[in-house]
Amino acid sequence: MTTTTPTPTATLSATTDAELDAVFAAAAAARGPLAALGIDGRRRALDAAAAALRDAAEALIPIAREETHLPEGRLRGEIERTAFQLELYGQAASTAFRVDHDPADAAADPAPRPELYRSHRPIGVVLNFAASNFPFAFSVAGTDTASALAAGCPVVVKTHSGHPRLSVATWQVVAPVLEAHGCPPGTLALIAGTQAGIRALQDPRVGAAAFTGSLKGGRALFDIACARPTPIPFYGELGSVNPAVVAPHAAATRGDEIAAGFFASFTLGAGQYCTKPGLLFWPESVPVPDSLLSAVRDASLHELLNERITAGFEDTSTALENHPGVSILSRSEAGASRALLLATDAASVLADPASIVECFGPAALVIRYRDGAELVDALGTVEGSLTGTIHADDEDDAIVRRVLGVMEDRVGRIVWDDWPTGVAVAVGQQHGGPYPAATSSLHTSVGTHAIDRFLRPIAYQNVPERFLPVP
Amino acid sequence: MTTTTPTPTATLSATTDAELDAVFAAAAAARGPLAALGIDGRRRALDAAAAALRDAAEALIPIAREETHLPEGRLRGEIERTAFQLELYGQAASTAFRVDHDPADAAADPAPRPELYRSHRPIGVVLNFAASNFPFAFSVAGTDTASALAAGCPVVVKTHSGHPRLSVATWQVVAPVLEAHGCPPGTLALIAGTQAGIRALQDPRVGAAAFTGSLKGGRALFDIACARPTPIPFYGELGSVNPAVVAPHAAATRGDEIAAGFFASFTLGAGQYCTKPGLLFWPESVPVPDSLLSAVRDASLHELLNERITAGFEDTSTALENHPGVSILSRSEAGASRALLLATDAASVLADPASIVECFGPAALVIRYRDGAELVDALGTVEGSLTGTIHADDEDDAIVRRVLGVMEDRVGRIVWDDWPTGVAVAVGQQHGGPYPAATSSLHTSVGTHAIDRFLRPIAYQNVPERFLPVP
Repeated sequence: MTTTTPTPTATLSATTDAELDAVFAAAAAARGPLAALGIDGRRRALDAAAAALRDAAEALIPIAREETHLPEGRLRGEIERTAFQLELYGQAASTAFRVDHDPADAAADPAPRPELYRSHRPIGVVLNFAASNFPFAFSVAGTDTASALAAGCPVVVKTHSGHPRLSVATWQVVAPVLEAHGCPPGTLALIAGTQAGIRALQDPRVGAAAFTGSLKGGRALFDIACARPTPIPFYGELGSVNPAVVAPHAAATRGDEIAAGFFASFTLGAGQYCTKPGLLFWPESVPVPDSLLSAVRDASLHELLNERITAGFEDTSTALENHPGVSILSRSEAGASRALLLATDAASVLADPASIVECFGPAALVIRYRDGAELVDALGTVEGSLTGTIHADDEDDAIVRRVLGVMEDRVGRIVWDDWPTGVAVAVGQQHGGPYPAATSSLHTSVGTHAIDRFLRPIAYQNVPERFLPVP
Repeated sequence: MTTTTPTPTATLSATTDAELDAVFAAAAAARGPLAALGIDGRRRALDAAAAALRDAAEALIPIAREETHLPEGRLRGEIERTAFQLELYGQAASTAFRVDHDPADAAADPAPRPELYRSHRPIGVVLNFAASNFPFAFSVAGTDTASALAAGCPVVVKTHSGHPRLSVATWQVVAPVLEAHGCPPGTLALIAGTQAGIRALQDPRVGAAAFTGSLKGGRALFDIACARPTPIPFYGELGSVNPAVVAPHAAATRGDEIAAGFFASFTLGAGQYCTKPGLLFWPESVPVPDSLLSAVRDASLHELLNERITAGFEDTSTALENHPGVSILSRSEAGASRALLLATDAASVLADPASIVECFGPAALVIRYRDGAELVDALGTVEGSLTGTIHADDEDDAIVRRVLGVMEDRVGRIVWDDWPTGVAVAVGQQHGGPYPAATSSLHTSVGTHAIDRFLRPIAYQNVPERFLPVP
């Protein structure tokens, strides 16, 4: 097996039109051979890519540290998660390509039925807009790339400007290994630059796009994907406030424990998770624990990912704290980024639901509620989110049933007595949700069902067995 | 059980804003109770609706005859198909709501895993734009309505102006039966008028829309659905030329038999099927059978659905026959609508691929090809289609493999030695395809997977069993 040493200083300049054309020509040419490699062949290539990524961890982590300011332990975990995703999706593809079969039946209702064999085809070249906040798991070899490759789709990654050298270095590790294991040239390519990304999304050779990032940028790209002469699916994960509800009995009996979990979750990675619990609904009958206020005050968080995110956090958190009805509960006094805990009440939220916006970074808003009715009403104003969290005791069942009904309409994942920032890579995962959490609420970008996004069904009617695809 | 007698003269005037608001208020209020009715409860309601529809056939058929000019036998079959769909989708919902479960695993890779239970939720109120050409099967109680109801979604049907009285009469048969079997008021409602349809599509209470109709109208509605503040899935089936290929050996040995099948398929229902084989690729080495020309000449077809479709057929077929390189092979001399068979060659198609457009009505274009290379090239210019048909003998295997590869990229269903106008309602059906056949190539509007369009996945993390949905 080839071992490739990444070049820590290599980067990409903005992709030109001619380069873009060459990238898509190669990707389009890779479609047939990559499909022909088959599920097992691709699984072996993905396994090898995972192994290569693990082997390259010591070389990649310093580049990632420098470009993203994320701590080493987190990056090490993220590499392992990314490798695991490559392996798991490679295995799961055989399930995703599932076949439905109706035998011919001359006596069928309402009419004689031919034989039908329904299988799936890779949807085409996938354009993957990498994220800033997960430089491995949602980037060059991340969940969108892994799921598209498992489905048999060549991938063009629009690299994120926040980690250009890491993007190239990761590609240098993964791409040659894929090729050494039978994937055609053009299976995985990188492009750079906002304008190149837009032109890429308009290229007729693209069959689907995936995106993880901001509401504003994601919506602009979604609009472009829909306006194409031939529209394509655009799987965008855009923004999410992730409400968490603490029921009265749980708040009264184990408020400190819940507060500690909340603090850890909303400040994890300096709050730069799309699943960060940004809203904490807390009963007015129970004081917000002093332990939460002091944990925030004493926090010492690492630097944010980049200057744009730092500036965005300043703007959004300042607007939020200056909002009528919002007060500062606590803020940290040290650290490279400052944790911020704000407070308001459900009545203020009901009076002005637009005040609840996602604040990407280490800030959260505690919303005090008087009773179940006010809680449910205020929760009902929250936009679509990736997650909704409930902390409750048996004594809280009546209120929980009402909260659950409202949350189920608004989120992709309900988290019980736990926190949403961990996103298990599994069959049963759902990482998505009603808009603006995702542009397509029918799909997930994490977990084995992520593969489904890149498979198009096709039926074969009376087709002889020798011509049927073997998925 | 209530038996409702339809009122053959009742119709709807264009829905006003106030009426529309009331319709959506009722539909939104129906969401909870309809979901709570459960899969089995809804199945019983759908079974009863199917039975009522069958019972009302004698009352409905004369209205349909008058409004659509479709023959009685066809309408009778379509009612049975529609009833069967209601029953089959009701049964299949339990499969569509499938659950994935990951048990908690503290030793899981790459991190300890919580319990995950992934289920589905009805996506919300479904807006169904009914079609002109299937006044039962793609209308008030048709496949979109049946699949949405099976998924637990209330349905608002934008009735088609081509059969207003039949729409009301069908609703009068079906809606009371649904209600008598536990569906809440607001489960199924009708609206009328183009402007009301557009306003309905913009209503924030709509969760998804389905459409069967023209490319122009469907694309305009798709664009509106995408441009909403909260975009929604728009499942449109827009247009399809449905290429059919006759391989050289098959043409030489059983050309008359194939020609007879082709004639029957492209003139079925006076050519007003979205799956009509509009293109016939025929080898230059074999003369087009005289039997085909005489069948077309002697055809006596019924009137087209309405004046707009008649005018559209005149315009499109005239443009096609006046196209350079296109000649008239045969046309019928009698009948209320005139069958038309045109001819061109693959070289002309390659020189001007835009000449191939869908012509809704009893017209088809024979494309003569010199060899496999020219066939494959010409086929490669055909836009996304619902179906692709192949007639071939064992001796044609080499050419078939190449044709199949091109077709699989372009169609939703491959039909072998058969014709595409029959669309079996089954698990393995795929009625959709790459754009413009459908706006979402990942979905089907016929067959039990049609239900998937209206189900949104949701994951439950560590949620106690008593709060988990029972699908």
